[in-house]
Amino acid sequence: METRRVLVTVPQPLRGLILTQETLSRLHSIAQVTLNEDERNWTAAEIAERLPGIDAMITSWGIVPLTDDVLTHADRLGIVAHAAGSVKGFAQEAVFTRRIVVTHAAARIADSVAEYSLLAAMLGLRRLHELDRQMKSGIAWPKTRNQPYGEIRGRRVGLLGMGYVGKRAAALFQAVGADVWAYDPYLSPQQAAELGVTRASLDDVLRACSVISLHLPVTDETHHLLGARELALIQDGAILVNSARAWVVDQDALLKELRTGRFWAALDVFDPEPLPAEHPLRKLENVLLTPHVAGLTQESYQGLMALAVDEVERFFAGQPLRYQVTQEMLRTMA
Amino acid sequence: METRRVLVTVPQPLRGLILTQETLSRLHSIAQVTLNEDERNWTAAEIAERLPGIDAMITSWGIVPLTDDVLTHADRLGIVAHAAGSVKGFAQEAVFTRRIVVTHAAARIADSVAEYSLLAAMLGLRRLHELDRQMKSGIAWPKTRNQPYGEIRGRRVGLLGMGYVGKRAAALFQAVGADVWAYDPYLSPQQAAELGVTRASLDDVLRACSVISLHLPVTDETHHLLGARELALIQDGAILVNSARAWVVDQDALLKELRTGRFWAALDVFDPEPLPAEHPLRKLENVLLTPHVAGLTQESYQGLMALAVDEVERFFAGQPLRYQVTQEMLRTMA
Repeated sequence: METRRVLVTVPQPLRGLILTQETLSRLHSIAQVTLNEDERNWTAAEIAERLPGIDAMITSWGIVPLTDDVLTHADRLGIVAHAAGSVKGFAQEAVFTRRIVVTHAAARIADSVAEYSLLAAMLGLRRLHELDRQMKSGIAWPKTRNQPYGEIRGRRVGLLGMGYVGKRAAALFQAVGADVWAYDPYLSPQQAAELGVTRASLDDVLRACSVISLHLPVTDETHHLLGARELALIQDGAILVNSARAWVVDQDALLKELRTGRFWAALDVFDPEPLPAEHPLRKLENVLLTPHVAGLTQESYQGLMALAVDEVERFFAGQPLRYQVTQEMLRTMA
Repeated sequence: METRRVLVTVPQPLRGLILTQETLSRLHSIAQVTLNEDERNWTAAEIAERLPGIDAMITSWGIVPLTDDVLTHADRLGIVAHAAGSVKGFAQEAVFTRRIVVTHAAARIADSVAEYSLLAAMLGLRRLHELDRQMKSGIAWPKTRNQPYGEIRGRRVGLLGMGYVGKRAAALFQAVGADVWAYDPYLSPQQAAELGVTRASLDDVLRACSVISLHLPVTDETHHLLGARELALIQDGAILVNSARAWVVDQDALLKELRTGRFWAALDVFDPEPLPAEHPLRKLENVLLTPHVAGLTQESYQGLMALAVDEVERFFAGQPLRYQVTQEMLRTMA
């Protein structure tokens, strides 16, 4: 069998987080491997000059757009396996017209994001971090210990968006005993029944659920899907979790609503990122702010590279891929 | 049918948290009800003078010990339904020798405590509260976002103690995909198999698990079960959760171990409580401190009173109780 050549564009330090010795050994066993040793992402020109003779490319966060100019140099490239979530940033029209197969690791990241959402929701219900802050500040026994905190079991949880992450989140919330409602215009009644979720309109989910978790992709349809009108529908005392994209919520309207203290939110995504140091969201008591970490666990980091190598291996063996992304799919995808 | 009389010793404000209108209506429908309207717990003498003619007593936190002197006045008392967890504080020998039935709501509180343990463990793995603190302190984009956080799915979780709470915690950790090991000298191989947990020695659980959650009762056997030797067995980077009783851990030895930063802990219980304002535990970064709240949710508060009324109703109807506590059981119970 002829030798296959794989280009891994991922530089250090990211590569150290995602590529284990075990996965690298596996990659070596199926191909001749070229790693990016430059400790930074390559420019378009730097990728282009390395493409001749390459059969497969493994990419991750920070990969430049693969334009027609770059891909002119791809004389053998059959697959781009993206060891990260969204492929929208780099998977240009040119990739698809050249019939280069694109695959992604969103399914692996989904597990990590779903856990973030469950954790953030439970934290919103119990506020252990606020109690800890009081205990650390020398308040002997916080009075808020007697306020009625909430359990996740038996709670009605509304998920907006039922893609990879939404489905995983549904399974996880159900596993701990929550009653899951879902809004997703692409979710059929049959799919909802299979997932055991109650299919509902956006307004109904916002009104009926005391925990709401966002798992919507960035598309034209989802831009500021939650504006002032929609945010006003959310119950007093509810928990809102956004571990998807800031794009789907009108951040100014959200700030205004949160300033009233009417409900609580965990926000992992911002517009822009990083969130400006002086941003008023950073002053609010009733929000938990995290720096876009919902997908970042050791298991996720290592799993997404393992998944990319799996896909390359399948591609070389002529087997069907598990996570191929088509141009059509991109329309409704994160 | 003769009229039954129920004495509810629970004063405000606690009664407002645990006795809903619905539960009170249900109680009125089965008995003539006397509530404690004094906004404080009654003394032994005050209870004694109200006992003649009472068939059932519903108690909660703060009830005085039911000694022989008090119970001399109990001419008809058949049941004490404790709308809280442990009955050890009040259920004296005299209660059992008089063949007064004792029942408790530990099973309901177990759900809330198990959720606390899952939440605390996941928080230890992801540190959302530390990231939030950094975001709030004006650090634009915390560098720690790239440290490898952990997922609960696939993790080996060790539970110490498999009573009401341990069993619920096992089910909950398993539901989110963890592999549960358990140490409990009273757990048979068959019970372990039924619960789907790996039965192991204390030392093996401490060595093998990267999350350890304590659900041990206060008995002579469990006093400082985790001393310096045992704490030294815990893995570097592990998560230790104590939502049971401070009694089971040598708090000074724990403080010493935590000061090294070797592992992380969530502590809901202290010796003494409240934890002194200047206690060195309050200075540590690698601990989450909460003021004995693991059982305190709205669902738990309301559920434990509903459970107590259920038990009284069953007792009056001559049906078997669901949560009777015998003197023999107390030996190995919280």
